[in-house]
Amino acid sequence: MPRFGGIEAGGTKFVCAVGSGPQDLETIEFPTTQPDETIQRAVEFFRVRREIAAVGVASFGPIDPNPQSPTFGYITSTPKPGWRNCDFAGAVARALGLPVAFDTDVNAAALAEHRWGAASGIANFIYVTVGTGIGGGAMLDGRLLHGRLHPEMGHVRIPHDRARDPFPGNCPYHGDCLEGLAAGPAIEARWGQPGKLLPDGHAAWDLEADYLALGILNWTVTLAPERVILGGGIMQRPELLPKIAARLTELLNGYMAVPDLRPPELGARAGVLGAIALANDLLNDAPRGHTVSRHN
Amino acid sequence: MPRFGGIEAGGTKFVCAVGSGPQDLETIEFPTTQPDETIQRAVEFFRVRREIAAVGVASFGPIDPNPQSPTFGYITSTPKPGWRNCDFAGAVARALGLPVAFDTDVNAAALAEHRWGAASGIANFIYVTVGTGIGGGAMLDGRLLHGRLHPEMGHVRIPHDRARDPFPGNCPYHGDCLEGLAAGPAIEARWGQPGKLLPDGHAAWDLEADYLALGILNWTVTLAPERVILGGGIMQRPELLPKIAARLTELLNGYMAVPDLRPPELGARAGVLGAIALANDLLNDAPRGHTVSRHN
Repeated sequence: MPRFGGIEAGGTKFVCAVGSGPQDLETIEFPTTQPDETIQRAVEFFRVRREIAAVGVASFGPIDPNPQSPTFGYITSTPKPGWRNCDFAGAVARALGLPVAFDTDVNAAALAEHRWGAASGIANFIYVTVGTGIGGGAMLDGRLLHGRLHPEMGHVRIPHDRARDPFPGNCPYHGDCLEGLAAGPAIEARWGQPGKLLPDGHAAWDLEADYLALGILNWTVTLAPERVILGGGIMQRPELLPKIAARLTELLNGYMAVPDLRPPELGARAGVLGAIALANDLLNDAPRGHTVSRHN
Repeated sequence: MPRFGGIEAGGTKFVCAVGSGPQDLETIEFPTTQPDETIQRAVEFFRVRREIAAVGVASFGPIDPNPQSPTFGYITSTPKPGWRNCDFAGAVARALGLPVAFDTDVNAAALAEHRWGAASGIANFIYVTVGTGIGGGAMLDGRLLHGRLHPEMGHVRIPHDRARDPFPGNCPYHGDCLEGLAAGPAIEARWGQPGKLLPDGHAAWDLEADYLALGILNWTVTLAPERVILGGGIMQRPELLPKIAARLTELLNGYMAVPDLRPPELGARAGVLGAIALANDLLNDAPRGHTVSRHN
C-alpha cells in the first residue's frame, strides 16, 4: 500500500499526517505561525518519512487550486499576517522534491468523506463545516467543485427577520450573510456567551437551525445534491441536525427531493485524510477529476 | 458536416430544428398541446429529413436527465396536464429509431452559448433566463451541472425587505423565493401591469435589479462562475444589466471576484441550438460529460 503525506493547514493549527487512509495514519499537530517556520516544520515531519510518494495540502483560504494558473498552490488574499500571496504548495514541493496536490480544506474533507466516510458511493453531495466560520466543499458527478477558484458557500444571503432576530450579523464583508448570522462568533455575539454554554432547548438552536436550513436550501436549489454532510463545532449540538432537516423539508415544500442530512464520519481527521486522498489521486491520474496537477 | 435534430420543448410551444449550428438551421414552431400529438408533430418534422444522425431534446421540467435512471428521458412531476411522467425521449427514440440526448432547456441553452455564443472559451459559467419563471443552467469545468437530477436555481431564497416591497411573492411553492419576487408574473402582480408596459426609470427596475443581484450572489458563492449570462424576456430591458452588475459588485464587496455579466448571443435560438449540440455530443462520446446516453 503506497503511503502519502497530508497537510491540513488551518488558521490556528497545522495537522500533518503520513499514511494511506483511516487505518494507517500517523499524525502530528502544531500551531500555525509564520509561513516559513510552519511549512518548514511540516517538511521536517515528512523528510524523515522517506516512503511517501506525494503530498496533499488541504488549506484555509482563499487559495488558488487551479493547476493551469501561474499562482497555483498559493494562499491568495487572506487577512492572516504573512500568509497573503504565499506559494504554499511550491514551497513544500521544492523542499521535498515531491509532487504536491492542493485544494481547499472543505473540498479535501468532502473527498475524504466520499472515500472513507459519510458520502461513500454518493456522487453529488456537499460537505459543510459550521464553526468559527461556515465553509462548504462539494462533489458533483464524482468530481470536486472548483469553479473559477473555489466557492465561498458560507457567504450566501438568506432572509433575515429583524423582528425575530435584531442581531445585525457580524461578517466583516457582508454583515448578515449566513456566516454573519450563524457561525460560532455570531452565536456568541447574539446571546452574550459561546454556543457551548447555551443549554439544550435554548431559542438559539431553533434560530440556528432555521438559518442553516435556509443556507442548505440555497445550495440545494443551485447544486441539487443527494446528501449534505454537516460538520464543525456548532454541529456537535445533537438537537440541531433533526431541527434543520425538518425545516429544510418545510422550505423545499415538495418542489425538489430533500437531500439526506448526515453528520461526518471522519470527524476531526477529515481534512488531513482528504489531503492524503488528494496526494493519492495525484499519482493515479486524478480519477475524480479534482485538482492534482504536479507541482515539483 | 453531420446534421442533427433538436427539440426545444417549452410549456407553451415547441421549437424543432434540423442542422449543424447557427449557420445551418431549419426550424419550425408549433404550440405545446397533449404529449402524443405534440411529439408526433416533432417526429414528422424529423422523419422527412432523413439525413439526421441523432436528436437532442431541451425540455421544460422537472425532468430526469440521468442516463443511469430507469426514468431517464421523462418529464416527471410537472403540473402541466398530460405531461406528468411522460417518457419524452423514449417516445422520440422509438418513433425515429435514432439515439436521443435529453437535458433541461437551460442546460441546453448554456451548452449552445458555450459552443457558439456568449460563453465561448469559458469553462465555468451560469446561464439564467428571467421570464415567466426564473431558471438556471451551469457549466463547471467544461461539464454541464446536473447533481441528483437538475438544479432549480430560480427558487433560491433572498432577503426580502417588506417595508420596501410589501408584495408577498407569488411562487405557489415558496412564496417569496427569487422567482416569486422577480419573474414576469411577480412584476405584473406587484405593479398592476406587465413589465413591458412599465417605463424606463420606474422603481420596478431598481427593485428587480436588486433581487436578481441577490440571486446571482447566492449562485456565485456556491458555484464560483467566471461569467453569468442573463437572458429571457425581462432582461430585454436595457437598464437592468448595468444595475445588476453594480449591485452585485456592492454585495460581493471584494470578497470574491465578481463574475462577468453578459447578455446571451444566441437569443431565442439558444434552446434549440443547445438541443442540436446535445445530439452532436451524443455521437462524439460526450466530450463535455453531459447527459448523452443513447436511448433507442
